[in-house]
Formats: sequence, C-alpha cells, structure tokens
Amino acid sequence: MSRSEAPLIEDAVTTGDLVDRLLSGLPTEAVLVDPDVTASYANDMASFCEAGVPAVVVLPRTVEQVQHVMRVATDLRVPVVPQGARTGLSGGANASEGCIALSLTRMDRILEINPVDRIAVVEPGVVNATLSRAVNEHGLFYPPDPSSWEMCTIGGNIGTASGGLCCVKYGVTAEYVLGLDVVLADGRLMSTGRRTAKGVAGYDLTRLFVGSEGSLGVVVRAILALKPQPPRQLVLAAEFASAAAACDAVCRIMAGGHVPSLLELMDRTTVKAVNDLGHMGLPETTEALLLAAFDTPDPAADLAAVGALCEAAGATQVVPADDAAESELLLQARRMSLTALEAVKGTTMIDDVCVPRSKLGELIEGVERVAEKYDLTIGVCAHAGDGNTHPTVCFDATDPDESRRARESFDEIMALGLELGGTITGEHGVGILKKEWLARELGPVGTEMQRAVKAAFDPLGILNPGKLF
Amino acid sequence: MSRSEAPLIEDAVTTGDLVDRLLSGLPTEAVLVDPDVTASYANDMASFCEAGVPAVVVLPRTVEQVQHVMRVATDLRVPVVPQGARTGLSGGANASEGCIALSLTRMDRILEINPVDRIAVVEPGVVNATLSRAVNEHGLFYPPDPSSWEMCTIGGNIGTASGGLCCVKYGVTAEYVLGLDVVLADGRLMSTGRRTAKGVAGYDLTRLFVGSEGSLGVVVRAILALKPQPPRQLVLAAEFASAAAACDAVCRIMAGGHVPSLLELMDRTTVKAVNDLGHMGLPETTEALLLAAFDTPDPAADLAAVGALCEAAGATQVVPADDAAESELLLQARRMSLTALEAVKGTTMIDDVCVPRSKLGELIEGVERVAEKYDLTIGVCAHAGDGNTHPTVCFDATDPDESRRARESFDEIMALGLELGGTITGEHGVGILKKEWLARELGPVGTEMQRAVKAAFDPLGILNPGKLF
Repeated sequence: MSRSEAPLIEDAVTTGDLVDRLLSGLPTEAVLVDPDVTASYANDMASFCEAGVPAVVVLPRTVEQVQHVMRVATDLRVPVVPQGARTGLSGGANASEGCIALSLTRMDRILEINPVDRIAVVEPGVVNATLSRAVNEHGLFYPPDPSSWEMCTIGGNIGTASGGLCCVKYGVTAEYVLGLDVVLADGRLMSTGRRTAKGVAGYDLTRLFVGSEGSLGVVVRAILALKPQPPRQLVLAAEFASAAAACDAVCRIMAGGHVPSLLELMDRTTVKAVNDLGHMGLPETTEALLLAAFDTPDPAADLAAVGALCEAAGATQVVPADDAAESELLLQARRMSLTALEAVKGTTMIDDVCVPRSKLGELIEGVERVAEKYDLTIGVCAHAGDGNTHPTVCFDATDPDESRRARESFDEIMALGLELGGTITGEHGVGILKKEWLARELGPVGTEMQRAVKAAFDPLGILNPGKLF
Repeated sequence: MSRSEAPLIEDAVTTGDLVDRLLSGLPTEAVLVDPDVTASYANDMASFCEAGVPAVVVLPRTVEQVQHVMRVATDLRVPVVPQGARTGLSGGANASEGCIALSLTRMDRILEINPVDRIAVVEPGVVNATLSRAVNEHGLFYPPDPSSWEMCTIGGNIGTASGGLCCVKYGVTAEYVLGLDVVLADGRLMSTGRRTAKGVAGYDLTRLFVGSEGSLGVVVRAILALKPQPPRQLVLAAEFASAAAACDAVCRIMAGGHVPSLLELMDRTTVKAVNDLGHMGLPETTEALLLAAFDTPDPAADLAAVGALCEAAGATQVVPADDAAESELLLQARRMSLTALEAVKGTTMIDDVCVPRSKLGELIEGVERVAEKYDLTIGVCAHAGDGNTHPTVCFDATDPDESRRARESFDEIMALGLELGGTITGEHGVGILKKEWLARELGPVGTEMQRAVKAAFDPLGILNPGKLF
C-alpha cells in the first residue's frame, strides 16, 4: 500500500488540471467552476462549522460519471465532499478548501416501486417528499420524515441515518435501507445488501454506510423497504404545568405498552415562538405541550387511553383533535418549531441529544439550568417518545459574547446527555459540529476501530475529510 | 504491523502451554481438556461441514475472563471459535483443529429489563426462550423466535442475525440489537451503540457485529430493544391445490397492505412428514398449506380479509382457528417441520434461500425440478411472507451416491435463489456450508471489502478462521 504514504493532496495539482481531468468523463454542464457558484456549495445549514470553497462542483447524472469523478480524485489526491440538498445540521456536507463538491442532486430518478415486494429503488438525489408521495400512490408508505422532508434527499438521509417525527413507531432511515450501490474512493462500484426482506450473507456493509456521512463511499442507488400506508393519524394535545409532568406522561404512555405514531414535546419557549411566528393559537399559558398521535384502526380509542394517562400525570388540559385537519394543524405547529426558534434571536444552534426516555425529565431540567447559567433562551422541542431532544440555543450571532455562551451551552448539553447514558446525536449526525464529542462518546478503543474501518474503505483519506473524526 | 507477518499458529505452542496460560486467568472448572469432552464441542447442527477437535474448551463467566482468553490466543496465535448452544445450521460454530472453543453458555445472566426504555441488557449465553419469558412478565416482547428458541442463545442469535416465524411483521435479531460490548481479538473491550431509541454517533459497528458469526470479536453483553407484548395471535390455515396458488395468495396478502404476524407455507412433502411424525391431523390431500396469523386488536377481522384473498387465489379450504389453543396447535405443526423432514431419510440439508416474495412461486417450482432431476425428496417449508424458504433435502447419509446428489441439489437451489434476485441465506448464516457461495453473491469488490473489514478487526486471523470466506 505505497499509495497511502503519498501526500493527501498533490500540491502540483492546479484547478485547471483537475477540471480538465473531470471534463474527460463529464459533460461541460456538469462541471461548475465559477467562484460565485462554487462558493454557494460551501455549506449545509449548521452554525459554527468552518467551510472552505470547493475548487469545482460536479453534478453527475450517472453511476459511471460518479466513478469517473472518484477515479480522478484518487489519481490527483483531491478531497471529495458528497452533497445532497445540504439541509444537514452538523456541517457534514460542508466543503473543504479546494475540494470537489460532488452534488448528487441530479441523480433523482425513482427507478422502481414494487408493492408486492414492498420496496422502492431510487437514485440518491430523490427528494424525500417526492418519494413519499410517489409510494403513497401505490398504497405504500416510506416513513422517515425529517423536518426538511420537502427539500432533503434520500442520499442525504442515508448519509446521516435521518429520523423525524414518526420514528417512535417506525424507526429511522437505517431501518429502511435494504441494499446500496456505492462508488468507493477509488472509483470501483460495490453492491451491498439485497432486495429481499431478509438476508445475512456476510457483514452488514449496508448499515455501515448508513450514517457514515459520505466518508466511506458515495451512495449512487438505494433499495428501500416500504410499509403499507397506515390509516391517517389522529393527534391529541395535552397541556402540563411543568415539563417534568409531561415527561412523566411520556414514561407512563410508553411503559403502558402504547405505540403512538408520534409523541412530541414542546416547551413553553417553543410554544411561544411558534405562536409569535405563525399565529397558531397554541395555549400560551402552558409549561409543556405534549402531542401524541395514533394511526391505528381506532385512533380515538387509543387517544382516549393516552389522554387518561396524561391526566394521571397531571395534565391541565387534554384536547384530542376531532379530525385529520385539526391534527395536521397541530403537526404544522410542531414542524415549525425550529424555524420559529430561529426567529427569536436570528440564529440558533440545534442540539440533538438523545437519552433513554426514562431520563427525559432530567435532561430537560438540566437544559433549564444551562439556560440560566449562560443567560440564554434555549427552547426545547423533542421527539419525546424516543428521548431525542432538540434543545435549541437562540442567540444573536453578531454578539461575540452571546455567541461564545451559545457554543458553551451547546457543549454543556451534550455533556449532560452523555452523563445520562445518552448520545450526542440522535439523528443529525456528527459532521464537523460534534466531532470533538464523538471520541468522548465512543471512547479510545471505539474511536480506533472506527478509524480502522475508515482506513479500510478510504486509505487515502479523500472522502469527506475532517468530518466525524 | 510486524505482528501480522507472524505465522497464524505458533508451531511451538503445545496444548500444555496453552492450558497453563489459560489457567493463569481462569478457574480450573472453566478449562476443559478431556478429549471426550472437547470432541463434544466440535460441531453445530449442520450437515456436510468439516470440524476439528478443540485443543481446549473454555467456559468463562466474566468479561475479564473472556479478555484473558483472547489475550492468550493473540499471544500464542491460537484460533478461537466462539460458541453458544451450537444449534446453528451452517457450521459457523464448528471447531477448527487445535482451537480454543470459547463457549459463552455460562455467561447467562439477564442484567436488566426496563419497561419505560423498553430494553433488556443481557449476557450472550441467555437462552432465547428464557429471555422471552422474562420480558413477558413485564408486559414486553422480544420478537426473534428461531425454531431452536428453547435452546439457542442470544449470543448465537446475534452471531447469525437469526430470524424466525414472526419476522414478516417484527424483523430479525438485527433489528433488536441497540448496543454491544465486544471483546476484540487482542482482548481489548469495545462498546458499540447505545441504550437509547435512536443514535447516529459514528459508524454503526453494532450492526457490523450482528451476523458476523464470531469472526470480528466476541459479544459479551447486549442491549436489546423490546416491544410491548401484542395480543395473542390467531391463526388461519388455507389449503391449496398447487404451491403456485399458495404463492399467489401470499402476493395478494402482502400487496393488499396486510401485516400478518406470521405467514408460513408448508408443501405437501412437509405436511405429510409432520403428520407421520406427530399425528397432527393436517390435511393430507393438500399440495400447499398456508398459515397466516394476526396479533392485532381484531384478529378475526384480519383473518376474514386474508381468508377471502386466499379464496380468490384458489384456496380449496380456509379454516380460521377459533381460539389460541387451536392456533398454537397449527404453529406446533409448523415448528415441527424440520424435525419431521429429518425423520424421512435420517438426514437433511436445510437450505435457507430468500427471494423477493414476488419470486416465491418461481423458486418453489424450481425446487420441484431440482428434486426430480436428482431423484430426491425435498420438502419446502417457508417464511412465505418474507420470501425466505427452507427447501430441505432428505437423504440417507450412509448412501454415498444419495449424499452426493443431496449436496449438488442443495447447491443448485442456491444458484436458483441468486438467479431470482435472492440471497443464499435469509437467516441461517454462511459458516462453512456456504462460504464458497458467499463470494458469488457478494462479487469480487464486495468480497474484497468484507475481507478488509475482517482484517481491520482481526489482523492475525485468529477469530473463527475458515468461516464466511
């Protein structure tokens, strides 16, 4: 492996050389070099993450073109940053200076939808909502629904193992990826997994790639599992006089064997922000609002049972939605939370700490203490049923001191999550934002073995360098 | 890495040296050297798989003892074969000559059951049925239920990512493993994953270990996800005049959006074998028997809908069980299938080909042609809802020609499975039995990358050598 002793990036490579080599296997319109254009591919949606400017942006349409890009990158030792819609929240798609930004957005075909086998075969650039709607027409359901589902791509979802509101019943993206075609760092094409419901032939490299943030290879095709479309869900809203009481309700619901299709918590700060932005008319006096939904054959009965548990936990008001329209309105309020919190001070840092759900109350209490200590507004919305919280630090990015406090409070919340037996990221990924924290979560042996896996797939370190580790 | 250039097994190591080293960190009763005893740890339950005799069998009770064993094995370059209950069907737990057979059966404690977090924490030697019953007492459900569930261990289930009857609704073992403690080849302890419902911090090494057949490390603790206990399932039996009609019914049921908790097919040969062995009174005249079950709030309604689909596909008789007792009787018949087929000729080779369920009919037809070509009895029972079939070749192991034909027919069925877009193993694993076929399924790039992963975790090749690759 003398190759791995070569320098990461050949100093002698000029952008001109790189572009010429790329153009030998890509059409002109797929290779962008205008600095204003390349600069626009520098970032995803995370705060506080450094980003360089790509030397070139490539927009392949075929697997062969992606293979060509990776062969050129390997030959010239140029880093490659795979990108989807760049809606990520951890800097995982941020460009490195002088890299090839490899945007998969033009590979956006749905290749197959099969209702008997309950699978879809897609290219990575398909937008989540596009796929969701397409499979709905066949009576099928693709559950993962990150907040950005109207924009984000399946390739990006696979890169970060994205979650969403429905995970508490249906799990995250990882649960729906059966097989992948991946272009490796050196341009070879590898197929993993299968199109069958089950299969245990060899190591599960499919799952290794899911959540690997473009650092092991470039996903160019995915075989996805689908579910039958469930009945429309009905939502209940419950108000509580304290976040602790709402968390107690969550524990009672889950220990009681209920399987909600959604179980979300919004704290007072979040409710107020949503009302301010969207005039949604949510109850302003609440300390915590819990939304529970069921997509079962008799959702009203399930909501009644869960409503009773909320009351037993001290809910001050329990309001089941009467119909789908009312339910949708409540969900819109929840989906608007992060945007609304961003409006509070102009900028947010969105944490993604996931704790065992029995520790949810302790985490939220702890976040309150952190907000007080740093004199900041931190709104908490949470996929409460999963213990996955998004404490959202609101700050004025033009104020250096407030920015520093924001960053420190953000870190302190991750430390608290780890203390409570949780993880630094439930669904947003590590990227740049949390890479110093990843080693803390994994420990030295885990980190070393993760690096060994990285080295096995990308010995030159050209795939999304500077992320994760 | 000068270590990797050392010979795999030091010729100079005598069994005496090895035992002395092992006894320096293990109690006497945990180190077995009596040749009659060590020989009894040579095999799992697969036919046609070579096995050596272990030099020594170790039965550790603690993580530290497992670490000691692996340190000794690394120092002396002695291969280690991790073993559970040795109920596997692919030779994955067969001993190599002169190895350390590392039996985890004495590490059999259930460390925690938590109904709010819906998790259990267990040692690897816990028997599947023991865990199932223990969590039932908390209103919880551990779904994976391989046929050997009364004997097989969770560690073994993790090693092969075991399935069972309920996978069509609940998935396989892999879906229930949240985190692992693993002793690596050199004795270091690594924790993977989490005890939270979600988490995407770093590569998913948990899933990499699930199904790795003891070739990457030794699982010493597992955090398992649990489900709420569903209502008892109700079973329907449908008779068909052809296997093709039964497979058509399977497709209609799955395309119709139904979610049975079990959807099993038994062909005529299997039904007859079960009646012969167990006097079960199954319909002798049937060409194919389909069993469907629902554990929903109103299973009778679901069975009625599915019964109508069976009739539309040409079922000659549809009999819903009236109650749990009748349902359990039908399931017992299904669970007895493999044992009953073994009784036909004394020995069986159990294939495990999984195809997209839309191809199930073609596979079963193909198996009939193979049985005719080789003049053999091959009974098919199948987890039909998953497309996972167990064509079971019945033969007289004392007849060399019949044994040869059995092996050839077994291989031809795997080839057919791959042709139909399936996999050589849905749930039994690769082990020794199918290792020549694994490379065929994975292709050269996939095989090379799988080997690279193996090398990253086990550079000396001491963990379960000769399996998988």
